[in-house]
Formats: sequence, structure tokens, C-alpha cells
Amino acid sequence: MPVKWLSSDSLQLGVCYYPEHWDESLWEDDFRRMKELGLSIIRVAEFAWTIFEPEDGIFAFELFDRALDAAHRHGLQVIMGTPTATPPAWLTHRYPEVLNARQDGIVYRHGQRRHYNYSSPIYRFYCERIVRKMARHYSGHPAVVGWQIDNELNCETNEYHSEADHIAFRQWARNKYGTLDKLNEAWGTVFWSQTYTDWEQVFLTRPTPSNSPNPHQLLDEKRFVSDNTIAFARLQADILRECAPNQWVTTNGLFGHLDNHAMNDELLDFFSYDSYPQFSSLENPENNTSLRDRRWSLALSETRSISSTFCVMEQQSGPGGWVNRMEMPAPRPGQARLWTYQSIAHGADMVLFFRWRTATMGTEIYWHGINDYHNRPNRRVREVGQIGEELNRIGALITGRKFIARIAWLEDYDNSWDAEFDVWVKPLRRQSRETWHKALQERHLPVDIAYMRENTTLEQLRQYSVIVYAHAAILTEERAALLDAYVRGGGTLIMGARTGYKDRRGQCRMIPFPGLAADWCGVTVEDFTLCNPNYPAASVQWNDGETDETPTALFNEVLSVESASVDVMATYTSAYYSGGVALTRNRHGEGSAWYLGSAFTEAIVHGILDRIVVNSPADGWVELPKQVELAIRGNIVFLLNYSHEPVWLNFLEPVSELLSGEERNGRVELAPYEVLLIKR
Amino acid sequence: MPVKWLSSDSLQLGVCYYPEHWDESLWEDDFRRMKELGLSIIRVAEFAWTIFEPEDGIFAFELFDRALDAAHRHGLQVIMGTPTATPPAWLTHRYPEVLNARQDGIVYRHGQRRHYNYSSPIYRFYCERIVRKMARHYSGHPAVVGWQIDNELNCETNEYHSEADHIAFRQWARNKYGTLDKLNEAWGTVFWSQTYTDWEQVFLTRPTPSNSPNPHQLLDEKRFVSDNTIAFARLQADILRECAPNQWVTTNGLFGHLDNHAMNDELLDFFSYDSYPQFSSLENPENNTSLRDRRWSLALSETRSISSTFCVMEQQSGPGGWVNRMEMPAPRPGQARLWTYQSIAHGADMVLFFRWRTATMGTEIYWHGINDYHNRPNRRVREVGQIGEELNRIGALITGRKFIARIAWLEDYDNSWDAEFDVWVKPLRRQSRETWHKALQERHLPVDIAYMRENTTLEQLRQYSVIVYAHAAILTEERAALLDAYVRGGGTLIMGARTGYKDRRGQCRMIPFPGLAADWCGVTVEDFTLCNPNYPAASVQWNDGETDETPTALFNEVLSVESASVDVMATYTSAYYSGGVALTRNRHGEGSAWYLGSAFTEAIVHGILDRIVVNSPADGWVELPKQVELAIRGNIVFLLNYSHEPVWLNFLEPVSELLSGEERNGRVELAPYEVLLIKR
Amino acid sequence: MPVKWLSSDSLQLGVCYYPEHWDESLWEDDFRRMKELGLSIIRVAEFAWTIFEPEDGIFAFELFDRALDAAHRHGLQVIMGTPTATPPAWLTHRYPEVLNARQDGIVYRHGQRRHYNYSSPIYRFYCERIVRKMARHYSGHPAVVGWQIDNELNCETNEYHSEADHIAFRQWARNKYGTLDKLNEAWGTVFWSQTYTDWEQVFLTRPTPSNSPNPHQLLDEKRFVSDNTIAFARLQADILRECAPNQWVTTNGLFGHLDNHAMNDELLDFFSYDSYPQFSSLENPENNTSLRDRRWSLALSETRSISSTFCVMEQQSGPGGWVNRMEMPAPRPGQARLWTYQSIAHGADMVLFFRWRTATMGTEIYWHGINDYHNRPNRRVREVGQIGEELNRIGALITGRKFIARIAWLEDYDNSWDAEFDVWVKPLRRQSRETWHKALQERHLPVDIAYMRENTTLEQLRQYSVIVYAHAAILTEERAALLDAYVRGGGTLIMGARTGYKDRRGQCRMIPFPGLAADWCGVTVEDFTLCNPNYPAASVQWNDGETDETPTALFNEVLSVESASVDVMATYTSAYYSGGVALTRNRHGEGSAWYLGSAFTEAIVHGILDRIVVNSPADGWVELPKQVELAIRGNIVFLLNYSHEPVWLNFLEPVSELLSGEERNGRVELAPYEVLLIKR
Repeated sequence: MPVKWLSSDSLQLGVCYYPEHWDESLWEDDFRRMKELGLSIIRVAEFAWTIFEPEDGIFAFELFDRALDAAHRHGLQVIMGTPTATPPAWLTHRYPEVLNARQDGIVYRHGQRRHYNYSSPIYRFYCERIVRKMARHYSGHPAVVGWQIDNELNCETNEYHSEADHIAFRQWARNKYGTLDKLNEAWGTVFWSQTYTDWEQVFLTRPTPSNSPNPHQLLDEKRFVSDNTIAFARLQADILRECAPNQWVTTNGLFGHLDNHAMNDELLDFFSYDSYPQFSSLENPENNTSLRDRRWSLALSETRSISSTFCVMEQQSGPGGWVNRMEMPAPRPGQARLWTYQSIAHGADMVLFFRWRTATMGTEIYWHGINDYHNRPNRRVREVGQIGEELNRIGALITGRKFIARIAWLEDYDNSWDAEFDVWVKPLRRQSRETWHKALQERHLPVDIAYMRENTTLEQLRQYSVIVYAHAAILTEERAALLDAYVRGGGTLIMGARTGYKDRRGQCRMIPFPGLAADWCGVTVEDFTLCNPNYPAASVQWNDGETDETPTALFNEVLSVESASVDVMATYTSAYYSGGVALTRNRHGEGSAWYLGSAFTEAIVHGILDRIVVNSPADGWVELPKQVELAIRGNIVFLLNYSHEPVWLNFLEPVSELLSGEERNGRVELAPYEVLLIKR
Repeated sequence: MPVKWLSSDSLQLGVCYYPEHWDESLWEDDFRRMKELGLSIIRVAEFAWTIFEPEDGIFAFELFDRALDAAHRHGLQVIMGTPTATPPAWLTHRYPEVLNARQDGIVYRHGQRRHYNYSSPIYRFYCERIVRKMARHYSGHPAVVGWQIDNELNCETNEYHSEADHIAFRQWARNKYGTLDKLNEAWGTVFWSQTYTDWEQVFLTRPTPSNSPNPHQLLDEKRFVSDNTIAFARLQADILRECAPNQWVTTNGLFGHLDNHAMNDELLDFFSYDSYPQFSSLENPENNTSLRDRRWSLALSETRSISSTFCVMEQQSGPGGWVNRMEMPAPRPGQARLWTYQSIAHGADMVLFFRWRTATMGTEIYWHGINDYHNRPNRRVREVGQIGEELNRIGALITGRKFIARIAWLEDYDNSWDAEFDVWVKPLRRQSRETWHKALQERHLPVDIAYMRENTTLEQLRQYSVIVYAHAAILTEERAALLDAYVRGGGTLIMGARTGYKDRRGQCRMIPFPGLAADWCGVTVEDFTLCNPNYPAASVQWNDGETDETPTALFNEVLSVESASVDVMATYTSAYYSGGVALTRNRHGEGSAWYLGSAFTEAIVHGILDRIVVNSPADGWVELPKQVELAIRGNIVFLLNYSHEPVWLNFLEPVSELLSGEERNGRVELAPYEVLLIKR
Repeated sequence: MPVKWLSSDSLQLGVCYYPEHWDESLWEDDFRRMKELGLSIIRVAEFAWTIFEPEDGIFAFELFDRALDAAHRHGLQVIMGTPTATPPAWLTHRYPEVLNARQDGIVYRHGQRRHYNYSSPIYRFYCERIVRKMARHYSGHPAVVGWQIDNELNCETNEYHSEADHIAFRQWARNKYGTLDKLNEAWGTVFWSQTYTDWEQVFLTRPTPSNSPNPHQLLDEKRFVSDNTIAFARLQADILRECAPNQWVTTNGLFGHLDNHAMNDELLDFFSYDSYPQFSSLENPENNTSLRDRRWSLALSETRSISSTFCVMEQQSGPGGWVNRMEMPAPRPGQARLWTYQSIAHGADMVLFFRWRTATMGTEIYWHGINDYHNRPNRRVREVGQIGEELNRIGALITGRKFIARIAWLEDYDNSWDAEFDVWVKPLRRQSRETWHKALQERHLPVDIAYMRENTTLEQLRQYSVIVYAHAAILTEERAALLDAYVRGGGTLIMGARTGYKDRRGQCRMIPFPGLAADWCGVTVEDFTLCNPNYPAASVQWNDGETDETPTALFNEVLSVESASVDVMATYTSAYYSGGVALTRNRHGEGSAWYLGSAFTEAIVHGILDRIVVNSPADGWVELPKQVELAIRGNIVFLLNYSHEPVWLNFLEPVSELLSGEERNGRVELAPYEVLLIKR
């Protein structure tokens, strides 16, 4: 499929707009002010199904025709959303089978959004019809440049239990396994007499005592949800390609149980992300470090792994939250601008603020837009104006520029989905991801998120000098071969406890831990235990004596060295396995493989990085405090101060700063939330 | 409707009695002892439907006839409860449509109480029939003086989701809006494509992803529940008025989603409250200050706002709780007496203890009555005897006496119901109500709860020199006009953050905060944020320099002074808006309007009260420690020691104490839970 | 019924084995290694219904025939499990009425285990058929020595709400009460008008507002569940007795709502327990004292009360847990051996480890067996080998030996089940059981759990010099007479608050507390209160002045001495009842009855034990630290070190240690988790 991109030569700013929410008399003033602020594109219509089809089969385009014409007159481009995330009341009332249900069968009803399922033939019929109607109608509109499919696929819930989903899952399983024998084997149904003898007995997981479904079935359920979501998006993408061939196609959001990489490759011109950095505070209310908003940098890196440059379809511009939950405070002065540069620094070539003006009704009255309800000047409007001015001035230097880090954090969907239900793995993954990210940020070492996929090549891995694949419980032969080759070829691979003991089905291999990874790690696991407050994780001591004793976290594996090429790097100093091997490095071919029999702590990550010696792109020309993130696109270095206090940098040589157009040198104060763009 | 009152010339004491729970041989002794203790009235029958109608259409009055005759012989008056809170098993089993349901459709079944809905025509038929039968039968009984409708309407649950409720709500909405266009506008259904195109699509809120229904629909749902509850009570009230015209009508309890003011005005002779001060401890297990039980004084003040004098139909007399929850310890010696005087001090003209003897079976075996299971003398019986003696001696001096405070805490149902679901408002309301109450109690400043209602008049507001209307998010034009006139006319009005930005539908006004209140407050809101541990509320400094810096709470609005008549009273001293205006006072007409851009803390309330100068009724004649509540009826001042330790008062002049009949002067010790009634 | 026992002359070790989980090529090696480790018996087949009956009515025994023949060739005995805990998918799909349901009616579905109900005639038909087929097939197999009925009856859930259960409960109630009048009286339905007038109205508890069913009905519901569970087991036991008369019958587990004593007496040859001591840590994650694993000793004592010697059908041998919950760390070296001796010390004559090799699939991949997935040597295998060697050497000295402690902790099912729902009793029971157990362990005083049953005799009670019956709220006339006779006859009976006020129905007696126990305790309760952080329990002072003031817990009753034979042992020193009587001892006949008006604390238990003077079996010959448990079988004393650190014993005379065959004397170090078996 030919990949189309939005605008050739500039980084575009825009805003989400809902003409149907406002008195028509406001439109012209809104569009005029958008242009004044430097915005050039709007997204519309993604929740407007009842506007376009007020009754079954009756279509009405007048409202949006007028809105789009007005936008066009003001020189604004338009992204059309397909409205399938919010089916009309007439549809769900007439055909309740289109609704999604909880696992216990309670059906979600009209009154919020995303209450439908992707499987119902009736829903698919109605979605196809409205998308086709809209695509035909707007394919030739001069303002319309692209389409967003649905809105935030798998947001609100990524679990589906309607009757139609059960039927679709049964067919999916039939396609995958062909015979019940194969399904029974894959799901290990011989355990607890779960064997299926007729396809009609096969369902998505349903209520069980202790709420504990078959874990292999549950893993397949997530794969089904992903495939089914993509299939639903494909219905729309195919219609858009057919009816609106000159407009591009994307969708927005990064939600669970969805292989976004596959969806992007198969269906989209590029991916879009919705960036609300304050969810980070919501998820960690106790965390008030400067690293907080930077957790969103990881999500942006993940987006970049899907789509080398991308759109941020919704960029947080004000306080957020629904009426009843997700209470987000106001971004402090400069903070929304910082977040915008954060998006851009990580690969965004287009950023739309959410939203032009705060809704005065509905669930999202506290999801504030640039403009307040009162529509008068405020500091958010001023801040967007500043961003608009800056990016219209220097955006062309950034757009299209890419970046590959030297370090990759490796992920894959099988392990993400399997670990959700696995309490022996999930906490390790969270702990290690968090600590690696924090340590790399403190060292100003950019990191890519890379995904192990069916089509991942050795060349792709070789782009990185260091790969961390922390707790890959599931490790297939193909992936093991790739990793082995990566290390042999000179790469540094770092793995942690619980690696490699499961196959693709989530069943355990009958070989010693760490399974296939033992080949290149040169160790096996002799003894192991999970740890808890009652049974604390042991401490370790580096064997080179250069670092203090430090505790491990969550799990302890005692390693058995199986090869002379293995260096024991650290040893347990407490618990009954005191003296046991905790951390090893194996010289394997041209490269080296590290194995830690635990989850990663910050101290251990720093210890490893000290010994690997990876240089920061900052080295040699600027000294940065830890509050500052360093990110790179092309030859531009972004320096972002996430602190609400000023910090000091020290330039060791004169540099050219793009936003100010000035030269900087020596000790420089960076104001709270301030951003520098240095041309290197 | 002619308002009838219970007994003309005396404060009546009584007790709740369940003749059906006891061997008939106990009745005579029970009634005799009641009289000995000074009790003159009993409430019966409110859970006795199966006694009166053991089978569908078969009525049996013999048991209660005998009980009432016996009571009458002992000179006791009787309040009959209509038994509709506990439908018989034969009814709910035959007609399951009379049952209430959870939001997810799971139907509540027989086995507890209040498991029915108010909407089912069948339930209404059966209720009307039993009430009519009972009213006719007892309208002429010489002991029966009045009726209690149902029992604790909307206790257990104040949400209704049966099929009958959905249908009734649809009709209610149709009556209210007439057209779907108006309903769609009121509920803001254009947001997320929720537009209704057929009345059959309209339901009470039902299960949605993230459990987040449309907030405007939910507000209307609560209004419907209130109207429907009143309609259900009206069915009974009309029958009672028709069949028992010489007996009065009340109902008991103060529960949610019910406009008790409207119900009282439209249907009742007076209102009844059930006072269990130990719920205060249950709700605040960490709170062991003397203010604890006094939180119930607020509920009693609220009852007084409904009914200037009232009945306490259930007064806690012992340890409370169900078998499985609500664990209440024993009232300490004197504490139940204190609570009785608390009820009376706040307006009760009749008090019935709950209950004569603890139930030996069922859910409430730990909801202790005056008598223990064993029916022998105990300290609770003795304490009631003391109360009986005292009130028979001095009750006539109190009964019918009323009191209007100088300060009012203003409430309204729209805001109460809307805030339940609104996390940007609800915590502020709770915080400010708690801190105002505490500060006023500490200063011995009585406070009225006043309600903004459709028929509230300026004269009613003018009774108060100070009105606190803390966080009235919903503010209609009519109410704004009333408040404006109140201030212009010389009143002092105090408001806090999040005032006035919503209309009656709960939609946001497109004017600057604090909406219509900006007129008399003389400020608008320039910037705002909610606050949390990660984003702490700023401190403020009083501009007159007389008070130390003090933190604000939960929310910060930065005020913009819009009028020369505005005095900036306090300024933020931290956060990015340091120096911004936090608290203002506007000289408006003859009065003044205070506006605090935050929730109220105790320090800020004291700061305001210091500057307003409101005198306590204690000033000049008695010095009171903070453990003592001061309350007034007519010319009698109640001094109530809520502490379990003795405290000291200091009378500055000789006073006459009614209970002891003695004169007090100078330094006086008040025993734990002791009460003084001073004639002024 | 003639009681059969497993093996006459030796303590048997074995392991749970699942031939159907493994490639058949592994079987021979597995069986060979079992024998090498000293194991002689395996349990199989309890989850293998679809192996035996892959389709409705089609039976297949080949797989297990081959496995059993192979086991037999290696000299292993076999316990067959009936597979009814895991019905096949074809059964539940065709007959959903066999499934269990949540209280709200949501049906549990295929995909885990124990998702069926015991009441469905269809399920009973299928269970009887498969059990009969298996019993006939294996009754003559030379390896098969016995049967396990189902698996862990009432594990996962012990609540049943399917349609079939409602019907069965109705019939059960009809059989019990005969008339609705009697049922209404027993359930106290006159309270809240719950009276039933037709049997069709009677159900198991169903959803109610506030989730608060009728407590007397709920108590009967638990009795029904117990009777129904036993009836379900009886179906199978009867078939096994008929078809396999030479093999013994047991079942495993100790779960709720089941009178295990009755089941054992009526149906089984002996009882089996599944011992996973690490559940203790799971339930008390903060507890890291050496007492932790010893809480399981109580469960083993309870098992002994059911079956004087017994089988441990599943002995924890490795880390445990499901994929999604119950995270258990690895037993430390020696700890699994300690747990094995713990089981034996408390009465096990047969111990099967769970399981031979960790499952590689399904919910229990983290419920580790002796062997790891990889099937290579590990420390768990070595540890089992050591146990095997030891017990093959000395087991015959232990097997069949019994023990009666001098102290009994008295339990009964009525009170256990009633207290589950009663927040005024449940916390006291938990507190007192915990503190008594801890104090007795610290003093090395073995304790029996004894059960008050219908057929309990005075002789049985008289085996104990001290009985603690801490908070028996329900106390029937029969049981009261027995306890009175026990005290009169010289026993020491210790009771605590909330004793004796309920009858068998859970209704309260109309006599003073402690009800019928007042007779022998010589006290009544004058005043009482539950206590909480706001209302703290008072302290007490021993009247002999020998102990410091110490706090009470959870509840305070103020006692009134009713007899001259009563000694006041301790008096309250705080709260309004300071000076009131807290603890008494009544000289009653030849014995004495203690009554504490509170829950027991450790200090109070030690105070009582100091004054009762009960000698430890250790007295005079060995001094033990508190980390060590002392347990006895016959003439063998087990000394078990539960600490992960070494401790010191001091033998005051030379003793013979069985495991080492050595003599010990004087100060001796006991390694972590080490065990000594001393012949006395």
C-alpha cells in the first residue's frame, strides 16, 4: 500500500473541534482565531454519528458541510473521524446484539461511548454503511486531507463478551487450530478435565469460581481481541481506500489487547497517539519527582516504534478528567508547551491539541480545551499561540527527521498479554521497565522501544548496541535464534529473571530456566523463589568490589554457570542462597549476554551501565541535570526541563539554539518547563 | 392543608414497640412500665404487613386490636406505621415486578426490607389497599393519634432500576420535556452521539463501560427518584387524609434522593427524624474529638429546616447495629440522655426511643432497645426514667418554642444531587461543610441549615445576617437574583470555589466563573486548578497581616478583581500563582459578599468570622469550653457537654437552671454528657 | 461400618501423580525414581473425567490401566480419585443446570474447576455412573488400595445458588421443619414481615439491599450446604462400598460449610487433609514470626479431631500458587521436611507430596511439585529422598500412635457458621483462637481441637483437664448440661465474652448473659459494649496484684457476681466501668469455670495459665526456646524448629534421638527447620 503523509514540508499544529457542540454563530470566530494561533488543521466528526444519520438510513451532511466549508475558507485542513465509537440510540435500541457485555454477561447500554462489540454482523453492516456514505461525501472536499478510523479503539474496555464475540472467537479458534485436538493441546485442557469435544463448547472466558480462567485460553482471547479489532478497523480502512483514495488514513490511541504495529502496517498511513502526560500522576499519585511526566516519553517512544514519525491526534492542553473520575490539575505555565515539544522530540510531525474549547455538557466537562467555557483570553490560549509561532518558524527543520537510539527496550505482545494474568511475571516487568527508564533518563541516554514481531529482522536488532529484554517468559525458537544471532554478532543483550520458560502457548518448557536463552546466557537456574515482605529479596555484591551491596527485587534465581565464557558479575549476600550467583555476563561470539536472576533495581541498572559504558549524546558538549530530558530528531537535540523549578545546564562549547535563534554557552539557566532546541 | 400537631401542651416522650415480636403475656407489663418511665406514646406496625394481611386479600386486625386496646388502657397514645416497607413474601413471589433492582438488572429479593420499587402499578395497588384497610380500621381507635407513612423512605438504597422504574422515568421525562429535542438539549446528548430519537430509547442510567453515565441524565434521575418517592407517599397520605381525617400524618428519616421539604409541605403535618448519633463514629472511625456526636446536630438542624418543630421517631437508646455491619458501642452513662436533649434542643417536640426491648431475632438483634433481651432493670431503663421525669416536669416550657439562628448554611437539592457524581465539587462541599460546622461549634454560634427552594423568599434569607453558600456549582437566574438582593439588602454572603458555573441542567455556562455570582462578588476567576498531594494547594496570607500564613484546600482559583468595591482579603503565597488573589470581600449595596477561591479550612473560617464579628448568644453571661454545644429554643439555652470528661463553665451572672431548678453562678463543673437548661 | 486402614505396619509416603499430563514415555522413569526416593503410593485420576468418559456414555480406561499397571510393576500402591470435581465440557454444555451460580444468579461456567452444584439430579446421575464404572473397573486392580471421593469438597466456593440448590434447600427446610409455622418461628420471620405462607416462597438467600439476608436463614443455609455436601459424597461412598468393598474410602481437604466430623464418621475410613503451610503467610503477609507456619498445626489438630490418625493427601513440597494468585515463595532448605514432620507429629500416618512434577500447563503451573518442569535433580527431590530414607527407617515406630493433649480448644459448627456473619462475635473468635494458640505454643503446651457435636460425651470432655470454649454464642441446653457436668466433675472450663446468649436457631435468649453458662460461671453481665479505636477496650488489673495492668480486646462485659463461690480475678481499671469485674473464677463442684468479659489477649491467657498451672510435657527434661514446637505421638516427642535460624535446646538428661540414632544431652543446637524425634 502506498504510504501517504500529511503535509510534505512542515510540522503541522491543529486542534480537535466539535462544530456540533456549539452554536453555529461561533464557528467563524473559532476558525479565525485558530489560524491566528498558528493552527492549520482540525479533527472533527468522530462522535457525530447521529448528526450524519439521525435515523436509520436517513443521512444528513449539511451541518458538517457548512462547518468544513467555513474551515476551508479560513485555510484550515480537516481530518474526518469515522463515528463508529458512538452508535446512535436508535441503533443499539433496535439491535441490542451490537452491544458489548461484561464477562458475567451484563450488557453495556447506551449512555456513554464504546459500548458496542466488533463482532456483530449487524454492527459491521451499519458501520460500513456510514463510513461509505461519509467517505463518498467527503472524498472530494478540498479541506479534507485524511481520516481517523473510529476513536481510541479498545479504550474504556479491551474485553469483549457479547454473544457475537463468543461466536467470533469460536470461529477464530477454529481457523487457528483446525481441530479440537490441537486446541485442547494448546490450552492444556487435559489439566482439570477441560477438554473440548465439540466446537459449540468453546467460548471466550466466562465466569468461574475464584475468577480464574484457563490462562492459555485467556492468552488466545487477547490475541483474538487484537485480530478482531484490526478486522473491524480493516472494514473501514478498505472502504476509505476505495472511496477516498487521495486522503490518508490513521487511527488514534495506544490501548490494550491490540497489536498496533500490525494494524499500522496493514491498514494505516501512519499512527496517531493521544498524549495526556498527567495520566502519569493519576497512576502514581505519590510520585512528585521530575520523572513523572517523562513516563509519557516511553509511550511516545512506543508510538515511534509503530510509526517512525506520527501524529499526536490529542495533545493535553489543559486540566483533564471526566465528571466522575480522572482528576487532573491544571498544567502549570509552560507545561503544556513542554509536553508539545516532548511529543515532537519523540517523533510527532503533527500535533492537534485536545480540544478547542471545553465542552459545556456531557461526561467531559472537565477535560479542558485551550479555550475555557467563557471563550475569553486565557493563559492556555496564549501558550498555544507561542507554540504556533515557534513551530511555524522552525517546524520545517524538524519534520520528517528520525532518530534511532543506541539502546532498545524490547517488548512483544505475547509477553505483554500473557503477563497481565501472571503474578509471577507481571510485577517484575513493571519494576524493571520503570527502573530502566528512570536510570536511562538520569544518564540522558535515549532509548527506543523495539518490538519483537513475526517479521523482526536481525538487521533491525543490530541497529542497537544494547538491547534490554527484561523478563521475556515466552520465548519462541524463532525469537531465540534471532537473539542468539544478535549477541553473536556483537550486540549486548540484557535479560532478567523468569526469562524463556514458556512457549508461545504460555505453557512451560521442560528444560531448565532460562530455557532457550541458556544457550547464549551460559547459565541455568539452580534454585529460585519469589520474594515478598515476609521473604525479602536478597542483596547482591558486585564481584569487582567497586559497588556497595545493594538489594535485589521481587524474585531471586540462583544461577548455575554452564560455560567458561561466563563472568560472574554479582553474588547474593543474604538468604539461604548467600554466595549464589545473581548476575552474569557471557562472552558469546562478538557480543555479550547479561543475565540477572531478579527484577532490575535502579542501582543494579546503573551498575550494569557503568560496566557497559554507553555514552550519552550529551557527552562532551553539555552537562545536564537529571531534571532535563535529552531527545533527538535528525540533527536537533531537544533539552526539556520537566521541573517546576529552574535548573542549570553547562554548555562546554557554544551552541546554536533554534527557538531563540541565539547562541548559548557555559552555564545557562533553564526556566521551569523550558525547552531548548540545539542544532548539532 | 390544615396542619395538625401531636399534643398541644407538652413535649412527649415515647418508644417504638413491636407487639408482634413478643409473647402477648408481656404486653401489659411493658405498657405499665412505659408509663412508669414517663413515656406516653408508642409507634407500632410499620413492619407488620403479614400480620394485617397474612394472605392476599385476607385481613386480620386482631393482634393489633388487642395490643392497642391494652396500650389505651394504660393511657398510651399510638402512632400507626403503614407497613409498606416490608411487602409480604406472597406478594413479591407472585408479582416479582414489584421488586427493585440493581443498576445491572439483578433483582433484589425477599429476605430483608425495602426491596420493592415505588413505580409498579401492582405494588401501588397493594399498598393503597392495605393502607386504606388500616386507616379505616384505626381511624376511630381512641389510642391512635397519627400515622407514619412507610418507614425510612429511600433508606437501604435510593436508586431504582426495576422495569417499572424505567417506564416511570420515561413518562416523567416526557412530562418534563414534552419533546425529545428538549430532552436531548437538557442532557447534552449531542456529546458522544447520545441523541434520542424515540421515547422508547429513554431509560434510567444503565450499565456502561467505566460505569460513567451521562451526568445530566443522572441528575434528572435523582429528581425523578425524589418525585417518584413523594408520589408514592402521596398515595398513602391521600388515603389517610380521606379515611382518618382526625389523625395526623408524618414519615420518618432523612435519606437521599428525596426532597424532604417538598414532601413535608405537600403531604405531612410535620416531619420525623431518626437520630442515631453514633453513625457519626461509624463514618469517621478515626475521629475521637468531642465534636463527633455533634455532627448529628447538623442533621437535626436540617430536620428543623423541613419542619420548624418535629418528631424524633427513633432516638438511639443503646448500642446499635445489624448482625453483619454498623457496629456501634454502648452509649456511655448519660450519653443517650444527652442525645435526647440534643434532639430537643434542635427542635424536637416529640421523641420516641428506639426501641422498647432489643429484638431477639432477625437482622437487628444488636440494635439495642431500652430493655435488654432479659427484660430486667438496666442502666438504659434508669436513664430513660430520668429523662421521663425531667421532661414531664419541664417539657411544657420547651414544646412549640422555635429558634432562628443568625447564621445559615445554605443547601439545595440540585447541588447535593449533582455533586454526588462530580469529583470536582463533591470533596469541596464535604470539606467546607465539616470545617464551617466545626468552627461555628467552637465559637458557640448556632447555625441553621437553610434550603434554596423554588419558593424561597428574600424575607426568609433576610432572617440571617450571614449566609454561607459554599460551593453552589448550580446557580439559576432566580436564585442568583435572590442572593444579589440579599447582599444588596445588607446581608453577608460567603461563597467558595466552583460557584455558579453550572445551570439547572448541570451544564456549564459560557461566562467567566463564578458565573452569575460574579455580579455581587465583584470577581472573576482568571486561572484555576484542582489540587492533590502531587500538586498541593497553595497557602494564603491575610492582607491585613494579622494572621499567619495558612494553607488552602483541594482547589485554587486565582481571582481577578472586577470592581473597585472589592477588598482583597488574602493572597496566595505559593505555587505559580503566588501573589494572586485568593479571598475577596465586595461591598455590594448594604451588604458584603465574600468569595474564597478554594475550599474552606478551619483557619480560614475563623479568619473570616474574626473579621465579620458575629456574636455568640453566650457572649456576656457565660464562658463555655469547646466541648459544650450551645443551642436555643425560645428563651431556653441548652448547654450540652459532649465530652466523656467533666468540663468547666463560667457563668458571669446568676442564671436559673431548669432541670435542677437551681441557680448557677461563677465557675461550674459540668459532668460528662451533662446538660443544663438555662432560662434567659 | 468396619473401619479399614491403609497399611498396617508403616508410615507411608507417596505423591500425587497425573499420568494424563505427561508423555507416556516418562512414566517408567517417574515410578522408578519414586521408589528410589522411598515413596510407596500415588494418588491419581481425581481430575480425569474426560479421560475416562471422553463422550457421554463412552468409557475409556486404557490410559489409566497402563499407568496403574506400570505403577504396580514398580511396587507402587494407588489411590484413585473420583473425578467429579471437574465435569467434562460436554456435560456442562449439554446440561447447564448442573452448574453452580453466584448469589446474584450469575452461573459459573466451564473453564476452571468445582463449577458444579451438588443438587442437580442430572449431575448426580452422571457422577454415580462414572463412579460406578470406575469402581467396578478398578476394584480388582492389585495396585489400587483406596479411593478419594471428589477433590476438596467446598474448595473454591462453599456457597451454592443454582436453581437446583434452591429446590434442594426448600426440600431440606421442609424435612427439617415440617410446617411453615415452625420455619417462620425458627427464622424469626415476624421481624420485617418476612413470614412465608407457601413453600414455593422459600429460597436460599438471594440478593437483598445492603447484602444483608436473614441471619437465621443464613445459618440454616450453611447447615443445608453441609448436609447436601455429605449427601453428595454419600452417593459416591455407597457405590464404592458396594463395588470396591476391599478398598478404603477417604476424601481430602478441610473446607467451609461442611461438618467434616459427620462426613468422616458416616462415610469414610479415615480423613485426609491437604497441608499447605504457606497459606499462613498469604493470610498474614506482615507476620514474619516463627509462629507463622505453626498456625497450620492448628489445622492439623483439627484434622486429628476428625480422624485420630489421618492421611495428608497433599503435602506442600515446593513454591505454590496459581497463575494469577496465591503467590507462595520457595520453601527454604529443610522447610518442606519440617512441614512433613509437622503433619506426622500431629497425626498423619500417610503423607503424599503434591505433586510429583510441576504442571507445565493450566492454572497451577506455579504450584510446584517435587520435580521441576525440567525433571532434573534439584534440592526438593533431594529433600524428599532424605525424608523417604528416614521414614522408611523409623516410620513404623510412629504409625498408629495417638496422642491426647491435656488442653482442648473447643469448637462447634453451629458457632463457626453463625459467627461468619456476626460482626459482634466473629472478631472475638479469631482474636482468642490466635492468642490462645500463640500462648500455648510459647509454653510448649500441646492442644487438641475438640468439637462439640450431637454425640459428644462427658467422657470425651473429661479427657482434658482444661477446656477453652471462648465465645460460644450459641449454647444449647444439651451442651450446657455437658459443660456443667464437666466442671462439676473437676474440669477447668474457660469462656469469654458473648457466651451463651443464642439458641440453636441463632435467636437470643431472654435471660441474662452468659445465658445457660451463668449457672456454672456464677456471673451475669451487668453492662457491655463492643470496643473500637474510638472507644478503646478497657485495661484490667489482676486482683492478686501479681501482674501489671494489661489491656483487654474488642469487647467489654461488666460482670455481676451471682455466687459466693466466685473469685474476682481481675477488674477493669479504665472506661466508665472502671472497678467493674472483668474476669472471674467459679469453684463449681470439683472443678472451676473461668469467665472473661472480653476477647483473650496473650497477656491475659498467660495470666490465666500462670494461675492454672498446667505443665508442659517438656518440663523436667528439656528447655525449649519459643521457636520450637513440641508435639507428641505415643512415646515419641517431636521437637520442630520453625525458625530460619539455628536455636539452642538444653536437655537436662540424656535422651535418645531417633532420626540420628544418637544420644543428646545438655546444650544442643538445632539447625534451621531441623527436627528431633525423642523417644520417651
